[in-house]
Amino acid sequence: MYDSIWDKQHEECGVIGILDRTLDIPRYLYWGLFALQHRGQESGGIALTDGHDIFTYRGMGLISTVFEKGLPDDLGGHIGIGHVRYSTTGSNNPRNIQPLAVYSAFGQIALAHNGNLTNTRELREELDANGVTFQTTMDTEIIVNLISRSRQTTVVDRIKESMNRLEGAFSVTIMTKDHLYGVRDKFGFRPLCIGRTTTGGWVLASETCGLDALGATYVRDVQPGEIVDITEAGMKSIMYAEPQRKQVCSFEYIYFARPDSVIDGQDIYQARLNMGKEMWNETQYDADLVISVPNSGTTAAIGYSMASGIPFNHGLIKNRYMGRTFIKPTQKERELAVRMKLNVVKSVVKGKRIVMVDDSIVRGTTSGIICKMLREAGAKEVYMCVSAPPIMYSCFYGIDTSVRKELIASALSVEEIRKYIGVDKLHFISLDGLCKAIPNIPREDLCLACFNNDYPTAVPVTNEEGEKYALE
Amino acid sequence: MYDSIWDKQHEECGVIGILDRTLDIPRYLYWGLFALQHRGQESGGIALTDGHDIFTYRGMGLISTVFEKGLPDDLGGHIGIGHVRYSTTGSNNPRNIQPLAVYSAFGQIALAHNGNLTNTRELREELDANGVTFQTTMDTEIIVNLISRSRQTTVVDRIKESMNRLEGAFSVTIMTKDHLYGVRDKFGFRPLCIGRTTTGGWVLASETCGLDALGATYVRDVQPGEIVDITEAGMKSIMYAEPQRKQVCSFEYIYFARPDSVIDGQDIYQARLNMGKEMWNETQYDADLVISVPNSGTTAAIGYSMASGIPFNHGLIKNRYMGRTFIKPTQKERELAVRMKLNVVKSVVKGKRIVMVDDSIVRGTTSGIICKMLREAGAKEVYMCVSAPPIMYSCFYGIDTSVRKELIASALSVEEIRKYIGVDKLHFISLDGLCKAIPNIPREDLCLACFNNDYPTAVPVTNEEGEKYALE
Amino acid sequence: MYDSIWDKQHEECGVIGILDRTLDIPRYLYWGLFALQHRGQESGGIALTDGHDIFTYRGMGLISTVFEKGLPDDLGGHIGIGHVRYSTTGSNNPRNIQPLAVYSAFGQIALAHNGNLTNTRELREELDANGVTFQTTMDTEIIVNLISRSRQTTVVDRIKESMNRLEGAFSVTIMTKDHLYGVRDKFGFRPLCIGRTTTGGWVLASETCGLDALGATYVRDVQPGEIVDITEAGMKSIMYAEPQRKQVCSFEYIYFARPDSVIDGQDIYQARLNMGKEMWNETQYDADLVISVPNSGTTAAIGYSMASGIPFNHGLIKNRYMGRTFIKPTQKERELAVRMKLNVVKSVVKGKRIVMVDDSIVRGTTSGIICKMLREAGAKEVYMCVSAPPIMYSCFYGIDTSVRKELIASALSVEEIRKYIGVDKLHFISLDGLCKAIPNIPREDLCLACFNNDYPTAVPVTNEEGEKYALE
Amino acid sequence: MYDSIWDKQHEECGVIGILDRTLDIPRYLYWGLFALQHRGQESGGIALTDGHDIFTYRGMGLISTVFEKGLPDDLGGHIGIGHVRYSTTGSNNPRNIQPLAVYSAFGQIALAHNGNLTNTRELREELDANGVTFQTTMDTEIIVNLISRSRQTTVVDRIKESMNRLEGAFSVTIMTKDHLYGVRDKFGFRPLCIGRTTTGGWVLASETCGLDALGATYVRDVQPGEIVDITEAGMKSIMYAEPQRKQVCSFEYIYFARPDSVIDGQDIYQARLNMGKEMWNETQYDADLVISVPNSGTTAAIGYSMASGIPFNHGLIKNRYMGRTFIKPTQKERELAVRMKLNVVKSVVKGKRIVMVDDSIVRGTTSGIICKMLREAGAKEVYMCVSAPPIMYSCFYGIDTSVRKELIASALSVEEIRKYIGVDKLHFISLDGLCKAIPNIPREDLCLACFNNDYPTAVPVTNEEGEKYALE
Repeated sequence: MYDSIWDKQHEECGVIGILDRTLDIPRYLYWGLFALQHRGQESGGIALTDGHDIFTYRGMGLISTVFEKGLPDDLGGHIGIGHVRYSTTGSNNPRNIQPLAVYSAFGQIALAHNGNLTNTRELREELDANGVTFQTTMDTEIIVNLISRSRQTTVVDRIKESMNRLEGAFSVTIMTKDHLYGVRDKFGFRPLCIGRTTTGGWVLASETCGLDALGATYVRDVQPGEIVDITEAGMKSIMYAEPQRKQVCSFEYIYFARPDSVIDGQDIYQARLNMGKEMWNETQYDADLVISVPNSGTTAAIGYSMASGIPFNHGLIKNRYMGRTFIKPTQKERELAVRMKLNVVKSVVKGKRIVMVDDSIVRGTTSGIICKMLREAGAKEVYMCVSAPPIMYSCFYGIDTSVRKELIASALSVEEIRKYIGVDKLHFISLDGLCKAIPNIPREDLCLACFNNDYPTAVPVTNEEGEKYALE
Repeated sequence: MYDSIWDKQHEECGVIGILDRTLDIPRYLYWGLFALQHRGQESGGIALTDGHDIFTYRGMGLISTVFEKGLPDDLGGHIGIGHVRYSTTGSNNPRNIQPLAVYSAFGQIALAHNGNLTNTRELREELDANGVTFQTTMDTEIIVNLISRSRQTTVVDRIKESMNRLEGAFSVTIMTKDHLYGVRDKFGFRPLCIGRTTTGGWVLASETCGLDALGATYVRDVQPGEIVDITEAGMKSIMYAEPQRKQVCSFEYIYFARPDSVIDGQDIYQARLNMGKEMWNETQYDADLVISVPNSGTTAAIGYSMASGIPFNHGLIKNRYMGRTFIKPTQKERELAVRMKLNVVKSVVKGKRIVMVDDSIVRGTTSGIICKMLREAGAKEVYMCVSAPPIMYSCFYGIDTSVRKELIASALSVEEIRKYIGVDKLHFISLDGLCKAIPNIPREDLCLACFNNDYPTAVPVTNEEGEKYALE
Repeated sequence: MYDSIWDKQHEECGVIGILDRTLDIPRYLYWGLFALQHRGQESGGIALTDGHDIFTYRGMGLISTVFEKGLPDDLGGHIGIGHVRYSTTGSNNPRNIQPLAVYSAFGQIALAHNGNLTNTRELREELDANGVTFQTTMDTEIIVNLISRSRQTTVVDRIKESMNRLEGAFSVTIMTKDHLYGVRDKFGFRPLCIGRTTTGGWVLASETCGLDALGATYVRDVQPGEIVDITEAGMKSIMYAEPQRKQVCSFEYIYFARPDSVIDGQDIYQARLNMGKEMWNETQYDADLVISVPNSGTTAAIGYSMASGIPFNHGLIKNRYMGRTFIKPTQKERELAVRMKLNVVKSVVKGKRIVMVDDSIVRGTTSGIICKMLREAGAKEVYMCVSAPPIMYSCFYGIDTSVRKELIASALSVEEIRKYIGVDKLHFISLDGLCKAIPNIPREDLCLACFNNDYPTAVPVTNEEGEKYALE
Repeated sequence: MYDSIWDKQHEECGVIGILDRTLDIPRYLYWGLFALQHRGQESGGIALTDGHDIFTYRGMGLISTVFEKGLPDDLGGHIGIGHVRYSTTGSNNPRNIQPLAVYSAFGQIALAHNGNLTNTRELREELDANGVTFQTTMDTEIIVNLISRSRQTTVVDRIKESMNRLEGAFSVTIMTKDHLYGVRDKFGFRPLCIGRTTTGGWVLASETCGLDALGATYVRDVQPGEIVDITEAGMKSIMYAEPQRKQVCSFEYIYFARPDSVIDGQDIYQARLNMGKEMWNETQYDADLVISVPNSGTTAAIGYSMASGIPFNHGLIKNRYMGRTFIKPTQKERELAVRMKLNVVKSVVKGKRIVMVDDSIVRGTTSGIICKMLREAGAKEVYMCVSAPPIMYSCFYGIDTSVRKELIASALSVEEIRKYIGVDKLHFISLDGLCKAIPNIPREDLCLACFNNDYPTAVPVTNEEGEKYALE
């Protein structure tokens, strides 16, 4: 909620799933979600089985808040899934918390979903016409009703049939009382990887840092169009769709994923270092100092420093207790809010020509305040480098992009943005530079739609102000 | 939860509904539920509309706990429904809280249900077969799916069709964004009455005390088999089923309803006074003092005293903070728990032959401890009168009757119960006496199934230990 | 807080103390305070020792709220004291919670105090002049500083000396790590009794109901001017002052104490029955029905009924969840607030000439609303009997009497009050009648100052509006 | 609490004070404490005046937790003080929360204290002998009693006299209803600086980052032995003692203070860069990569990198939600706990000879686990550089140093520590190097007692295991 003023885009979700006969499942789900917490801070939860029923434990806030009174004792079952959510529309709606668990003719089933469907409207209309009721506004509830209404006989066939009905982005973990499934859409927009525990069990997680937290070993990523069906007997792979043009979200590399994760074979940290190097190649700014807007711009800043030989230092210090305050500055106090979060190290910036690296610019207001603070502290010149190209188009695949008209780059030229922010120079990494920085993913396999309007799927109609289709 | 040791049966729910253009709907729902709190203390909630969407605010605990941080500001709409619940099976399951609100093809709808269906299994199986998913284990979710899946075109016809599918006990309030409905099953097991506010609006409530709390005027009871359809234009009555053999729950008169309520034309307080008088007629105990087990036995005790001329006094004082404690005595400390709740007034009981009136005996353990306490305080003799006949059969219509084997009267004779409790004499009111005490309801219109096994509907199969059908 | 609109005076405190080698001290303190909860609901706490240090556990709200997360595990020590408080001035001040525990030269000591000193100002000034600092505004902190600054060598002599410095009302329990003390002021304003546990330990409690809750046996009351010094070796009695004119608070009998308690040899329940009988003797009202304002007027109402032969019935039903709501009616909504708390049983009162018994009238507003409700429900005539004489003077001994100008009886005659309330007849019990109703206490031993201005001690100066001396 | 396993020493407190006629005092205190939160996370609070009384608002946890239900509305007064605390002994004792406010003969006064007195025992004994009672175990309560018992007539003279009685470390903010005072002990162990608000008011804060957060301008540091007396009329300086050998805590520069603060003229960030440079000078390690143990070692690591030319990268990623979890790994799970907090970036460290910089080693266990994680990720060699010399002696001036026997450096040689941790090389900065890194403070003005046993004051007696004097 509060973070909304920080001028960042938001990932909507992180998911996890564990099947292991020996581990304390709730505890391991907790640690895994804790490692994935950066993917969603507004609500979270887990689903567990005791071997007969599936139970959910869910709540608003950080996963540590949801479980501040303790975890459920291990119920004896060996499967669980979990979810952390940054919710967009229904943020203050406690009904919209995952995992979602239901009773159905073929038994209980629970789902956790990361991503965003693009044919929500059509699916809802079809289900509505068949008398289906919905208790939430989440895509997840659509998915589970498709599964439940499938005429297929086995659960895996139901899932297979249902996944073929979905358009858009979805990485999903699903559990029944004896199966754990992982599914990734046929474009692979959102990540999902597979690991093994030291005790022979299985883990599914949005990022490899979720495996690391459990001491699990990375096996491979779930493939676009693949269902993995995990039981105690082992893992089976089912391709439910022909994988098409792969479209991994480029923003995972720029900003969302944790730097210690690897997605589809590309190390995040190295990609960000590379972005810094590419920006140096593209700018060659003559400067005294490289700084970052902490923490997300830091790796690219180091890359810029390494490539350029210009020393890197921390010119801005972030208050590490930020995000835990409920005393919110008003919109009018935005400058105070930035000061609460960030402080300038005057001795570092004074008299310097500074390259300031940030990962993206959405609305540009925070950047403007930071620039002002740097100048007050004596910075001689401020050159800003941004490791994402200008964001000009909305995302329909699970990122909470502002409506188009709020994206500063959809309305202003780079020069106009430079003036608005008040920096002396401003550079956005080029699309080419960005793609070069992610060498392990072929350019055609990266989703760059928010930069170049090349949406790999049909997208929902938006109104003339670029507002996305709202369900209710 | 804690109350479970108090050897009482539990009503499962109370419902309310308000349509009024001028009132602060959340506040009035709150006050109405506050007056109906005795019908359920484990969870509660309200549903409101802002004229477009329906929102729910629900939680565990007393209605004052659910709203301890305040009520939602009036959203501007003019309709709301509310619910208090004593949940039986799913007591620790936060999913099972009402009202239940859903999105459907014909718009949003919310329901609050008091009672218990007897054809749950058949309906669930039918819906399961059609791919319906359930997020709760509440009958309410079955009802709303029937409404949603109905092929009727108007909401009221959908409700009408659906209500005809239900067997068992149900008094339901339903809201859409512009209609308030009240429905009562064709036997009228559970109460539901209609009132008018001073500002011309409408109120539906489980009991008339809910109307009184709002300053509303009683109009009439909803009839068995009737749907009332209330809009700003007024109230319409639709009979969805031929009213059959009316079967008002006799336990409402004995114990559940508040003494200041009137149900189906019968004043509760007078009925309880009458029960006392009938018990005097049936016992003619030669005694010095009439006391009650507070608070539920008090009115019948006064009736006994008035009829017999034996003075009534408070021989037992109840701690009025009981029920708010989380420090629970263990089962072994049951006697301590009774002492925390009740204390003997020694000066009242010492040396006396006492008639002690209670409303019912379920397991008999508390009665035994009280009798022991009275004797320790110097009571000469203890004669116990119970204003319900022996409970020998489970209820399937919304009362949390213990499984049959836990009902002391299903296993022991009156004389055996007397010995178990340790009183000198023990009398249960006769069925005839009970029916005479409720003069405004013809005997054939009272449900007495828990006393005489005469169930007015088919009832679910139970296992050999008398355990009721459990959904999962 | 909320109760302030109920037109009742408030007792300020209840105290307890336990010394027992075998019991779980925190649990027993909890149960004892639970039984004394009617003496104070705004805060509470306990002090315990582990044999070395003294720890306090205190908080705002009911004792069940203070310990809603559980009791401290038994620390192994064998002594504890406890306190419940209805605070007057410092009600929203979390600093003013008892017991108060301090470190001092002679070791740690904790106190719990019921009552009110009348020489607070002088003592504070003296201590101030000696550089003492105060962290609270409680008399208790004055007392503990007197004890600490005493030049006596033993703890008991320090207490003895200090108690002689105090004027006014105080019943105090004190603990060190190996002693439990009980002290009562030389007039005996506030009660304090002694009991033995079944395991040979000792209990001190404000009322005998606190002993009963623990299964303890009443031994005797602490005498005015007495210190009891309890260790594992047994109890010693020290008279620290010549007992003077005994002055037991008459309001304990009228309203404060629980009906199942006995104070200084007088059974509370019998005294209240007697008050009803005396009121019958004094009024001889020709009526059809006796009712009470629940719950405090009920025993006297039964007494009136027994003496007169006019039947007693419950004409008003109290919502038993009252006091737990945080949604407060505004002052303008006082009538609604009364309706939330009380409802009329119409069938009982309709067409009747009613004697309504209440224990006291402070401001008279609630009585007026109740009378209006009775008439709306069809009562023919309402005669009100009050079991306390008109309260015309402030209490300085521990009762939260409104400032004089707010006491309706200090400004209006009985006839004027009758008109204000709107009843047909109004009778206050006479002083003689009241004293006759408390036969075990000689009239000269009862404090009646709030009725007759006969204060047994010097009292603090009040301002011209009768406002009491406020510490800050 | 949880942080205790992180092998860090803990600062005990941060203080603030504001006098400003125009600002919203509670809000500004909150923001100031938010900026000082790193100095103490276990409890916090503020004291405010309404111009007549002083009120405190205090609680356990982060300052955002203490005020999670909102700040007190501005009471109209213009002065406030605040405190954040990492408590050592009394950590779970809610009584030990500051600011401490008392009533005294000369009016109300509140204090917030950072530091630790070394003559606590003597002062307590003297006050005990005079009958003073203590409700806490905080030094602050001793200080306020000295002030209160002073025979001086003015408050400032009372403070002056009292401060001369104190030995050890204390930086104190004090408020009455119209004065704000700041005091620093005559050695200046703990920092305290003075700033002006943009509206002409005054701020006192432990660090300049507290000024920056309020948009206040740094004026100067309070001098050792100085009292500043601030009113609306302005600031007066009183030297209460001859400043002696100045002894600024060197650990403020190494670890405690925020890198964006300046203490006594020495910029923290530059000092830490210097430490890195000095360590390069002292080690000249032939390596491929410099990393830090985040976040506290990062600045020194960058310094090392800059001086050596060896590239700096983030080899370890810290989970930024750490410290908010209540699900605690057990002691046995220490390795899991470290994994929850830190993850290795494998692509960064693989195959590298690594210089890992940390700020200090207390027990050495965490360092050992990190080293193991680096090796598992493929690090070729691990050389550890520590920017504090070996900590061999306890601190008596406000740092929660483990008892001596728990300090690994008090028992083991550097080579033994190296083996224990498992690194290939280990270097602690030399005392000379450390002092050179803090050029603006003359070496003789730095307190280095924990490294060299040169305590500038008499210190309390400790037992043979080096446990410090415990008050109770």
